[in-house]
Amino acid sequence: MHETLGVAVIGTGRMGADHVRRIHEMISGARVAAVVDIDAERAKRIADGIEGCTAYTDPATAMAAPTVDAVLIASPGPAHEAALLTAFDRDLPVLCEKPLTPDAASALRVLEAEQRLGHRRVQVGFMRRYDAEYLRLKSLLADGGLGRPLMLHNRHRNASTPPGFTNAMLINDSVVHEMDVTRWLLDQEITAVTVLRPTPSGNAPEGLDDPQFVIFETDGGALVDVEINVNCRFGYQVQAEVVCERGTARIGEAHSLLTNAEGRWGGTIARDFVERFEEAYDREVQSWVNATRRGEVEGPSAWDGYAAAAVCEAGVRAQSEGRRVAVEMIERPALYR
Amino acid sequence: MHETLGVAVIGTGRMGADHVRRIHEMISGARVAAVVDIDAERAKRIADGIEGCTAYTDPATAMAAPTVDAVLIASPGPAHEAALLTAFDRDLPVLCEKPLTPDAASALRVLEAEQRLGHRRVQVGFMRRYDAEYLRLKSLLADGGLGRPLMLHNRHRNASTPPGFTNAMLINDSVVHEMDVTRWLLDQEITAVTVLRPTPSGNAPEGLDDPQFVIFETDGGALVDVEINVNCRFGYQVQAEVVCERGTARIGEAHSLLTNAEGRWGGTIARDFVERFEEAYDREVQSWVNATRRGEVEGPSAWDGYAAAAVCEAGVRAQSEGRRVAVEMIERPALYR
Amino acid sequence: MHETLGVAVIGTGRMGADHVRRIHEMISGARVAAVVDIDAERAKRIADGIEGCTAYTDPATAMAAPTVDAVLIASPGPAHEAALLTAFDRDLPVLCEKPLTPDAASALRVLEAEQRLGHRRVQVGFMRRYDAEYLRLKSLLADGGLGRPLMLHNRHRNASTPPGFTNAMLINDSVVHEMDVTRWLLDQEITAVTVLRPTPSGNAPEGLDDPQFVIFETDGGALVDVEINVNCRFGYQVQAEVVCERGTARIGEAHSLLTNAEGRWGGTIARDFVERFEEAYDREVQSWVNATRRGEVEGPSAWDGYAAAAVCEAGVRAQSEGRRVAVEMIERPALYR
Amino acid sequence: MHETLGVAVIGTGRMGADHVRRIHEMISGARVAAVVDIDAERAKRIADGIEGCTAYTDPATAMAAPTVDAVLIASPGPAHEAALLTAFDRDLPVLCEKPLTPDAASALRVLEAEQRLGHRRVQVGFMRRYDAEYLRLKSLLADGGLGRPLMLHNRHRNASTPPGFTNAMLINDSVVHEMDVTRWLLDQEITAVTVLRPTPSGNAPEGLDDPQFVIFETDGGALVDVEINVNCRFGYQVQAEVVCERGTARIGEAHSLLTNAEGRWGGTIARDFVERFEEAYDREVQSWVNATRRGEVEGPSAWDGYAAAAVCEAGVRAQSEGRRVAVEMIERPALYR
Repeated sequence: MHETLGVAVIGTGRMGADHVRRIHEMISGARVAAVVDIDAERAKRIADGIEGCTAYTDPATAMAAPTVDAVLIASPGPAHEAALLTAFDRDLPVLCEKPLTPDAASALRVLEAEQRLGHRRVQVGFMRRYDAEYLRLKSLLADGGLGRPLMLHNRHRNASTPPGFTNAMLINDSVVHEMDVTRWLLDQEITAVTVLRPTPSGNAPEGLDDPQFVIFETDGGALVDVEINVNCRFGYQVQAEVVCERGTARIGEAHSLLTNAEGRWGGTIARDFVERFEEAYDREVQSWVNATRRGEVEGPSAWDGYAAAAVCEAGVRAQSEGRRVAVEMIERPALYR
Repeated sequence: MHETLGVAVIGTGRMGADHVRRIHEMISGARVAAVVDIDAERAKRIADGIEGCTAYTDPATAMAAPTVDAVLIASPGPAHEAALLTAFDRDLPVLCEKPLTPDAASALRVLEAEQRLGHRRVQVGFMRRYDAEYLRLKSLLADGGLGRPLMLHNRHRNASTPPGFTNAMLINDSVVHEMDVTRWLLDQEITAVTVLRPTPSGNAPEGLDDPQFVIFETDGGALVDVEINVNCRFGYQVQAEVVCERGTARIGEAHSLLTNAEGRWGGTIARDFVERFEEAYDREVQSWVNATRRGEVEGPSAWDGYAAAAVCEAGVRAQSEGRRVAVEMIERPALYR
Repeated sequence: MHETLGVAVIGTGRMGADHVRRIHEMISGARVAAVVDIDAERAKRIADGIEGCTAYTDPATAMAAPTVDAVLIASPGPAHEAALLTAFDRDLPVLCEKPLTPDAASALRVLEAEQRLGHRRVQVGFMRRYDAEYLRLKSLLADGGLGRPLMLHNRHRNASTPPGFTNAMLINDSVVHEMDVTRWLLDQEITAVTVLRPTPSGNAPEGLDDPQFVIFETDGGALVDVEINVNCRFGYQVQAEVVCERGTARIGEAHSLLTNAEGRWGGTIARDFVERFEEAYDREVQSWVNATRRGEVEGPSAWDGYAAAAVCEAGVRAQSEGRRVAVEMIERPALYR
Repeated sequence: MHETLGVAVIGTGRMGADHVRRIHEMISGARVAAVVDIDAERAKRIADGIEGCTAYTDPATAMAAPTVDAVLIASPGPAHEAALLTAFDRDLPVLCEKPLTPDAASALRVLEAEQRLGHRRVQVGFMRRYDAEYLRLKSLLADGGLGRPLMLHNRHRNASTPPGFTNAMLINDSVVHEMDVTRWLLDQEITAVTVLRPTPSGNAPEGLDDPQFVIFETDGGALVDVEINVNCRFGYQVQAEVVCERGTARIGEAHSLLTNAEGRWGGTIARDFVERFEEAYDREVQSWVNATRRGEVEGPSAWDGYAAAAVCEAGVRAQSEGRRVAVEMIERPALYR
């Protein structure tokens, strides 16, 4: 491994390009050694702006380059499995954007491959675990002063959805964050999912039932609800309240700048997830670079990616069938305990 | 009717005694003309402290007194039906503490008796409708600027329950407030109830599953959830957030006095419903007195009392059977439209 | 005194008419027995709407009526002294709107007359002492848990001023409230006043320096500052923060209804003092009626009215001379200790 | 200049050691090439933990090392002038912790030396300009929507002071931050200072008048007040509210994690400036590294350091003489316009 970690970024869409900029400008101890995109022009244009960075169209070739020490996968979900297996072949540390893979079966194959490797190599990009507010909430729960968590209420609101957003994407792309947050905050597995649907908002595009109300049950007996509301018009807002035996704790009120103006007091709501979670992404990647340089793997594991995929599958079924669906998962392998 | 309304207060337990004090000291245009309690000593002790007030043990005798213009029923629920029917016989205006009666069948009999009378005589004591914050929320919804309501999230937290508090009481005595609030805020009927139960808190007394999570569906397609959490230790807290098409609105944060002290900023939480809703009770009774003096009947009607009873019955069944239960109600009679 | 207190309301301008309505509709144990205005038509119009109420043009004649038990003075300030002395002649209890009188010399004459009477008869209308938030703050300070008060920061903001509002009125009509609040909250006398003036806002009308920043020193060594800002455009806002030895306490954030809408979270600011302090006025008058019926006099005394006048005189001088001005007051007479 | 900026950190006390850690672990594009301390042991111990870092006891020798591209001065204030002049001799970019120098005369000599150099080389460590909340406030003011700023209210509270903290240090070490914030936020120079002192808190150590209330006047006609309160016991709190012509804007409420527990709602207050401003320090140093690598100098200039020194001198005099003191400053040189 080089003194400064050489990272190959695979995929240069919105997320990938953002990670390239981040590693180039913000992250200590790492540099962008390679960018990969099937669009060769696009890859070259990005590589040209960064000293010592080479453009590739094939992930495997990029991973074979002597300047590459680690891989950040930001390509579309269906391409993840192949990239992950290639990285495992080279025993390269990977930061894989969510989802690990698009379904539980393929996630399971990744899990098995990593187990054959005999050690963890993958950190999955559930960036909320790196958000300062969620971290404070996690730390407060770990502290134990409020007692055992009994319920977790979540609000997940987007101003609007892009064209073509479907009910399944509501679960797989949006609620998946609350699935991971639930598992991480409570340190419990999700055992069943129910999805309730009020009469849709007039702002919901044709074919999308928006908002929806999702309920998780956990193996620790906690009850979790999620308001998922992705055409709410007023902004991007993520809130969570944990109800414990002796108190509650809540995050997601954005109170940093308060104004009095035009008959109202208050503040602005974030426009989108980039504004809300930008620092979480920085912290996520810095944390991955630091652990990698120390030869360690931390953060959300391939197991977390698999569990999210399994809960998503139950969620989509619960949504389409209008009933409570139990989550089916393999037993947790020793590597991930 | 006398220039100053002569009120007979039936029942001098905690609520009744509080209403006596209220009418005597706070309410404009009314006086306590009679107090009724089966405990004659207790009634006399209270009557002695108020000029022109007579003590009775029988509601009918009190209602026959020439000084009595109106009746406030604060006796235990099972005694309400008889008192209401007597008041109807004398065509006296009534403020009846909740519940109207303990079950839907008896509530239906009251409904029918009032219909035979041909005009409304009863205001039911759902005092949250008189709370300044709920009133502001109602007014904002009526205004329509946020669009149609889609969801309503409620938190109902008590520091602790008295001995003997049961799962059924959790629905009938506590969640009944959210039932009425839902119907009033949204102007929709509740059509089904589901009750979910996480593993109980260590603070829950033997035999009580606490907290619980109750879900209402409405005939307008809204989805309503209630965290009912009655041994939360930290205080009494009632919160509501309505999620509309273009925004949300929330009440129940008690931000009137903020302190910085001992490493923390914040404020105190109310100890109990009296502290939280004291002014709502004042406003409720004053409003009843004012309407009565004008010869009108306003506020929650016997229909609202019946609907609450019907939803409670579905709620208790949903709770004990662990499934969604549809609410059964008669069609709304013309008198209550 | 009659069982129901017969009140003569002197002056039927904005404040007077509002008090008439309040006593008629809201206040327990009192009725409007007389209204007085030099505009006979106006007085008669108001009296006609209230059973048992007579219209007068002369305060003394009204006070002589056998139905009158107590007096509420809401006439212009220059008329207060004569009305007060007449009430003293008849030994009638008085609620006198602020100011007690327009200057310290006349206030002193009232003080002396009340002392000759030998007992307190006057409550002065400093209604902030009856505001729920100020009361909580006072109670917290009395509690002593935060230690001795060291500083008091005040914000007093109005959307706009009526035509003809002068620099002197800024002190006499607006800052006078903070003078009383300071004396009452801290239980200390104000010993000196300084008035600082930044470059005026573009919204300040010709001839008015707005905003200004007023500093009080007290005989207990506390330092008090007041932002007086009466053309702030955004609404009416009164805030206070007491800084004590071990913590601070703050009131005046109006957090009762929170919305998310159009990219912003927050709430509305009151439009004017009526909206902000309406309940304080109710509580003030009810409290006066209750004390009067018990034969007692409570609340802000003529001494408080005199002290306010003395501090105002120093304030206006400090403002016009651009320097710190010491407050001159007589020693507190025994009657007011 | 090397691809990765080689930084010499001068002074390895609390601030210096923290900057070493920061550059080593957090900052992209820089590394610690040298550490300097008169305590050779201490310097060596720190250098030993960092690859490619050399320990020195003499700043000039360190600055002459071929691995050093830039200098971070974190030694005690009296040592700054010499270090700055040496850096100027080598034309090295400097991040100089506040104060630039301990008094206006020496700051003026630095100004003159930098002018002789003909271009800016120094960024002064006023880190509040890099705090996310202050940046949002600055941006809102720049936006102009609230109109011209008229007043700025500041609260600066510390839990307690270290032994030996004096009245002069209150101005020079604490209020100096509000001096810079005032100049930066309002883009105006401070023209006069007044310091008021209430009776000290019982928590104030012998010889320190705490709290104090400091007033700045500016050449733009704004009025600025600072509550400086450094033994407040409850925590570290920095708040600012700008009052503009059409609204106000406020920062410093730390609302990121809200709890309900033990009868109270609210959150924790930061313990000290490190907790409150840690990210501002990160952003400050990263910003300096980024600008330096681009060959630019940004952020607070030597002129800002000089102005702070001049206002501090007026502040200390105003404090000890108990009167308003005008600030004396040279005209702003062309280099700093």
